[in-house]
Parts: sequence; structure tokens; C-alpha cells
Amino acid sequence: MRRRLADVSGPARLAAPGEGLGQDELALAARNHGLPLEALRYDVTPPGLHYVLTHYDIPAVPDDDSWRLTVSGRVRRPLSLSPGELRARPAVVVRTTMECAGNGRALLSPRPVSQPWLVEAVGTADWTGVPLRRLLDEAGVAPGAVDVVFTGADHGVERGVEQDYRRALALDVATGDDPEILVAYAMNGAPLPPQHGSPLRLVVPGWYGMAQVKWLRDVEVSDSPFTGFQQSVAYRIRRTPGETGEPVTLIAPRALLIPPGCPDFMSRTRVVGPGPVPLEGRAWSGRAPVTSVEVSADGGRTWEAAGLEPDHGRRWAWRRWTFVWSATPGAHVLSARAHDAAGHSQPLEQAWNRGGFANNAVQRVPALCLDPDGG
Amino acid sequence: MRRRLADVSGPARLAAPGEGLGQDELALAARNHGLPLEALRYDVTPPGLHYVLTHYDIPAVPDDDSWRLTVSGRVRRPLSLSPGELRARPAVVVRTTMECAGNGRALLSPRPVSQPWLVEAVGTADWTGVPLRRLLDEAGVAPGAVDVVFTGADHGVERGVEQDYRRALALDVATGDDPEILVAYAMNGAPLPPQHGSPLRLVVPGWYGMAQVKWLRDVEVSDSPFTGFQQSVAYRIRRTPGETGEPVTLIAPRALLIPPGCPDFMSRTRVVGPGPVPLEGRAWSGRAPVTSVEVSADGGRTWEAAGLEPDHGRRWAWRRWTFVWSATPGAHVLSARAHDAAGHSQPLEQAWNRGGFANNAVQRVPALCLDPDGG
Repeated sequence: MRRRLADVSGPARLAAPGEGLGQDELALAARNHGLPLEALRYDVTPPGLHYVLTHYDIPAVPDDDSWRLTVSGRVRRPLSLSPGELRARPAVVVRTTMECAGNGRALLSPRPVSQPWLVEAVGTADWTGVPLRRLLDEAGVAPGAVDVVFTGADHGVERGVEQDYRRALALDVATGDDPEILVAYAMNGAPLPPQHGSPLRLVVPGWYGMAQVKWLRDVEVSDSPFTGFQQSVAYRIRRTPGETGEPVTLIAPRALLIPPGCPDFMSRTRVVGPGPVPLEGRAWSGRAPVTSVEVSADGGRTWEAAGLEPDHGRRWAWRRWTFVWSATPGAHVLSARAHDAAGHSQPLEQAWNRGGFANNAVQRVPALCLDPDGG
Repeated sequence: MRRRLADVSGPARLAAPGEGLGQDELALAARNHGLPLEALRYDVTPPGLHYVLTHYDIPAVPDDDSWRLTVSGRVRRPLSLSPGELRARPAVVVRTTMECAGNGRALLSPRPVSQPWLVEAVGTADWTGVPLRRLLDEAGVAPGAVDVVFTGADHGVERGVEQDYRRALALDVATGDDPEILVAYAMNGAPLPPQHGSPLRLVVPGWYGMAQVKWLRDVEVSDSPFTGFQQSVAYRIRRTPGETGEPVTLIAPRALLIPPGCPDFMSRTRVVGPGPVPLEGRAWSGRAPVTSVEVSADGGRTWEAAGLEPDHGRRWAWRRWTFVWSATPGAHVLSARAHDAAGHSQPLEQAWNRGGFANNAVQRVPALCLDPDGG
């Protein structure tokens, strides 16, 4: 009997109605993690609280400066750079909110079986690095180039295909400055942690996480459109398995609130007292600047405007918002929703897709307000 | 209708046969996280990869030095110390492997419904702090003291009981030096991250995680045995709900291996080629020093001795072990098991308990070895 990758690597599937999470989904949830929502209180997410998704394994990386980033393909002067050589170049720092393309997946019905995020796959960091367009300038893009392909050092099998993690950007995006794309070597002023791509990663502000290639080892300029697994098979918006689908690109608007009061350990339901309860949270959109945030305390039936802090010149970072909720005894569902300058808003019910991508349906936070004597 | 905490905070329960994970378990898994097993390669776990379990919320903590740790109760000279005052005292660094008492819970059948760990709730750090016994000396323990109670700033509801997180140690343990217990303010040489107890936490080497009180704000010497929720209700080994049960204390021996080869994204099954495959991992026990590690490649039917590195004088840290597996084409299950100097070993099947505590059944890593031509 021949052993085939298909023996351990099945096709994508949807959970059956009422099917609880399986051990495969749990194995992903136990090693990857979201932002504990109370950590929305920090402008910049502290180490270890930023969401992490690793497709395969975190690669072992040499301690010294022997890592090489190559710039190859349709260029006049191929480059081979150590992290030290990159750090010697002029640096840019960009504060960026990143979100996993699969955020919200486990709330969909039927549930696509994959990393089971609820709403917490987000984080904000100050990334330091060299603008990608400068490196491409230095290498000299040759005529005929159409895509730039990024290869990470993480290696594994997915839906039967053994692969290095690899994604591409169109040449105009890769050589553009809006957003300014970085080959980053530092996160919040410190060298990248292993799980965030040490020693080098791509940072593409405004795009979902699949574009932010970690453990970056090659940038290849290509004269044909990239059709690799993570571009053509995964990360497409599809309703049926057969269709080509639309690529997942820029982050859809989302607001999240810090669950108020205190939690029940198991149900995570919030417990608050009656009276004014300050609410706060963050809002972001990769598609256009956030223009307003609204809050609902009745599960989305009625909405009121929240106060929205200025963006402080940081287009790609989340913005803080505040609201005061007048809590009355009883069971409530708290939500916030963001609107952006391009007219995008968050839906109450998500338009379903097979991969569970770009799900920005509004968060629902159950809260019990006790009677005035403390319940 | 009165609103009661019981409306949102149910009793402990077991999953029904075949019941998949629920959204409550997922909400815990999404915010807490284990050690990605490939990170067993690091002697000291890098920031953000050490397991984290937070019962309630990570508390908001002032940026300045206004936090106070009080030493109160049956003492002659009550103390009130800022983190800065603690840092001014003689410090000790202890490299400690910590493991959650609930590690392995989601592998039990029936499954206790709580934080659903597989095997990865572990990590090793260099903790810097002041020995607890020095602080208790300074405060002067009064006659009649029996327990020392530690209160954290995290606050929530559990099984209907609103509480600050609170645990106790017997006086002889708290004032002993084996293990040396720390009031720690640094992890791996940096200030504690928020999720690891910033600004101060207890570190009790060799004990499961429930003893390692984070966000420590009070140490109270008591003349009566502590009967709080986390001591008398939670963290007991029970087979029926009614029994008193045995307290969860020292970490049972465990070995884990770094899954070899590369993973399938969804099944996490490992793919390797035929021939010699180097295996390595870590082993630890809070009960007594690890004396040997064995490896099985046939699901626990046969075992061979692994090479065990010396402990380098670090009693409370995990020890590295190595083995070379001769892989042959086919499906295999890899396991390792640790033995300690007190005669404790890891079972192949866990003795079940209602809380899912102290489960040290051997890890099972499915691996597919491809045919020589690459499958």
C-alpha cells in the first residue's frame, strides 16, 4: 500500500448542523490564540497578546546573522541580504492593526472546519523595517513583471499539497507607498518574536493576515500571475467548492468592545451593576478610514453614536472609541459597529462563505445587570 | 424577576458522550493558549509562547509604581510594598517549568467542560523576584499561623461565586526554601507581561499553575485553614461531585516530544521520510527529579530509552532528551514518557477525575512516514 499525503490531509469541509468543535479544530485553537478582549485597552498590544496564526510550524531559525533574504526573479540585480544588512538601511515604523482573514469563522453556520476564531484574531503593533519598494528599487524590477511572490520558511501540507507558505502581491501594490509595505525586523521596538516571523517578515498594512508572510526568505519578481495554493485555492471568497471566487484582500471594518464588568469563568457572560457603565473599544478598517462607531445594548435593534478618538495620523492603526451605557437590571447583549469612509459597515448577520473569510458581523457580548442590591 | 449570578454561572459538568467542544470551551481556548510544541526546542520559552491561563480578565494595572503588595494577617509588622521597593531587595532567579493543572483535560472521556487543553499547557521561564520567606521573616509571622493566603487582582464569577482569585499554601511550604517561592517581578529578564501577572506574581516551583497567583496584591497569614473556592471547591481530585477530594499540588511527571517532520495544517498529523529521524523533547516532574525518559514509536507497545541531558543544577526546569527514530513507511504513533526519582511514571491511560486535573497520560503524535520516493 502506498502512503499518500491525502491519507492525512483531507479536503476542506463544513461542520454538520449542531456538530461541536473537533479535536483538529481544538489543536489549532490551543496553539494559536487571539487577543484577550480586555487587551483592547492598550494602544499597542503588549508582547504575547497580539493574535497569532501559524499554518505549519514556527521554523527553527539560527541565532546568528546567517539568515538570508533573497530578492530574485525578474530583477536586474538580485539581492541576498542578512538581517543585519537590512537593519543598516533607513528604517520606517508603521503602527498597524492586523486581523486574521478567518476571524469570526466559528460563528458561521454551517461552520467551515479550520482555525476556529470567534472575534478576537486581531492585534496592533509598531513594526520597524525597510520599505519593500526600496528593496525592489535597489534590485531593479525588469520589464514584464506582474506579481511579487513572498516565500516564508514555514513548511507543511495543506489539503494534500506540500508547500512552503507563499503569497503574492500585484507589482503596483508591492512597489506602492499606500500602504507602505515593510520587510520588518522589529515589533514594538524589539526583535521579532519567533511566532511573529523572526528574523524577518512582511507587513502589508490594511490587508488581512494571510498577506503578512512571516519568516520571509525570498521575494521573487514574476512575469506571470502567481497561482500558488494560498492565492488560488485558499483565501478566496466562495459559496460553492467549484467556483474561482474573489481573493481576500483588505480588512473589512470592525469595532470590538472591551467586555465590561467582570466575567463568569465558564460562560464568559459579563456581570455588571446598574447605572452608568463606561464602554470602550477599538475600530479599524483596511478599506478606508473609520468614520463612525455606534453602540447597541439591545442586540442590534437600536444604535447610538460612540465618541471616536482622532487617528493621530496613524491611518493603519485601530482607533479608540468610548460610550457610556446606562445599565438597567436584566440580560443584555452589547454590540458595536464601525463604518468607514468608503461606505462599508458591519452587518448584523454575516454573508456566508465556504472559507469563513472576512467575516465582520457585529460582536455580541452577553451581559447580566444585577439588581441594585447586588443580586 | 431577580437576576442571580446562577443565571450566568452554572455548576461544573461533564460533556455527553460524543459531544464536541462548545462555544464556551472555545471562548476559553481562543483567549488562553498553550505552547506550540515546536517551541519545546527553546531552553527558556520566548515571550508569548509560554502557556497562559487567566480565570477572569487580565486586570488593568497602573503604569507607575502605585501598586501595593500588602503582607497582612497574623504578622507582627504588616508590610505595604511597591514593586520598586521589592526590586530594591536582594533578588533570586529561578528557572521554572510551569504546567496548568488542567493540562490534558480535553483528552479525557467523559470530558470535564472547562479550559480544553490537549497536552500543551506548559512553559519554562527565568523568574526574578524576592523569596517569599524573606518577606514573611520581615513581617514576623505570629504564633498560631497555619496558612498563607495569596490574593490576586483578577476578579470574576465561578460556579455562582463572585471572587478575587485566591489560593493558599501551608505555612511550612510558604516559609520553606525547597522550593524557593518567589514574589516575582520579572520574566526572562523583562518586567512581567500583563498576562503573566504584571507587576507582581507568585512563583511556586514544582506546583501546578493554580498556585502561581498572578497580579498579587495581598499575602495574608491566617490562623485557620483556608477554605476559599479555588482551594476547597476547585482544584480537587474527585470522582464524584460530593466527595471532599484530594488537593491538586505538585506537578506529575511528563515528557513531551517536538513533533518531527512537517505538519498537515488541519489534522496536525506529521509527515516524515524514511530513515533516521532525530527526536527531541523535554521532561519534568514537580514531585521528584526526572530519572529517565523512554520513547515509543508504536503507540506505547514497546519502549526504548532516550538520552537525557543533565539538569545543569536547575531542579525546577525541564530537561532535554534526545532519541533517533528509525522511521519506516507507514502510519505510526510517537510517544515519550518520563519517570522520576520518587517512582512516579506516566500512565498510558489516565485515571479519570471530574475536574480533569493532573492528567499526565502519555502524548500521542500521529506520524505518516512516506515511501522512499517521497510518497
